[in-house]
Amino acid sequence: MDFSSKLLEQAVDEMSQLPGIGKRTALRLVLHLLKQPEAQTQNLASALTKLRSEIKLCKNCFNISDTELCDICANPARNEELVCVVEDIRDVMAIENTGQYRGHYHVLGGKISPMDGVGPSQLNIHPLIEKVKAGKVEEIIFALSSTLEGDTTNFYIFKQLEGTKIKTSTIARGISVGDELEYADEVTLGRSIANRVPFESSLKG
Amino acid sequence: MDFSSKLLEQAVDEMSQLPGIGKRTALRLVLHLLKQPEAQTQNLASALTKLRSEIKLCKNCFNISDTELCDICANPARNEELVCVVEDIRDVMAIENTGQYRGHYHVLGGKISPMDGVGPSQLNIHPLIEKVKAGKVEEIIFALSSTLEGDTTNFYIFKQLEGTKIKTSTIARGISVGDELEYADEVTLGRSIANRVPFESSLKG
Repeated sequence: MDFSSKLLEQAVDEMSQLPGIGKRTALRLVLHLLKQPEAQTQNLASALTKLRSEIKLCKNCFNISDTELCDICANPARNEELVCVVEDIRDVMAIENTGQYRGHYHVLGGKISPMDGVGPSQLNIHPLIEKVKAGKVEEIIFALSSTLEGDTTNFYIFKQLEGTKIKTSTIARGISVGDELEYADEVTLGRSIANRVPFESSLKG
Repeated sequence: MDFSSKLLEQAVDEMSQLPGIGKRTALRLVLHLLKQPEAQTQNLASALTKLRSEIKLCKNCFNISDTELCDICANPARNEELVCVVEDIRDVMAIENTGQYRGHYHVLGGKISPMDGVGPSQLNIHPLIEKVKAGKVEEIIFALSSTLEGDTTNFYIFKQLEGTKIKTSTIARGISVGDELEYADEVTLGRSIANRVPFESSLKG
């Protein structure tokens, strides 16, 4: 693209570094900002800068937080002996939205992926192992996505925990509530039969 | 959405004010920035702020520019008696990309749209009329999109120019080069027959 303004070009370049935003979309967004009151651009810029410089990770679970200990870890009503291992904060938000989980989380910050240069040391795996070895945890629930990377990460953590008496589980895989059987993939359908549950327990909701 | 951090919530809120960016996409973009080096966020924020506060509009054609007069208006090789009227800078870039236009532009900054509260006074129409009345322009090419708003804007300017001896034209509407006739809409196909051109002139490319 041929810009008539260096300032515009720079703004579009920076905007188009965001994932899924190409040059054309970036230009559309930047031109939109130019038509809005200057305050909107300033608010956006300062919110981003402030977030990036002041953001904290909860020292216990590595969830994004404004305080040293996140609201979930600081809540005495929650069961700290049950720890759900997730990839990032979006998973925490999704599980919290169900309103059905009262344990703690442990946010890994990603999955082991040699292709992307992400090894165990870049993730928050070590603090999880320490927490378990300190005897503070009774059960770990693996809730990573069931991809190659997710399974690798689960297995790596599982191996690291060998020798401890910790209980480990993974979230149930099966047919989504409301889905038609005929459209389900075989792996999911196979697992949902192998891991069938007593009929009475399905009545609870 | 239930955020564990006010800072994060603010950044997502501001980001999701951009057109076509919902809360989920905003969260994805913001989390991406958090994983990148802090410099990337700072560069984005400062490029946007700088653009918004320092941007100039060319005093002749209202194109976005870093200088008082944009590169096109400042170029003596270009024909200032031929003025192409467009909606915004993206249209300028599109026409410039063809490499086939050597005249000037006039950027209106929008189209007349009573539904969106945009009247003639919010657009750069008056300076265009002045330019014509000062006798500096020989021909105006209307290159707005052929929507109700575009046609209204063209017609408004056309009426304002009554009494002057200016030549006015609109860009040709017709079937795109390479397109199949059977998929063209009737209005376009009709116009492309009504406005047919001598066969020899189509050979020029």
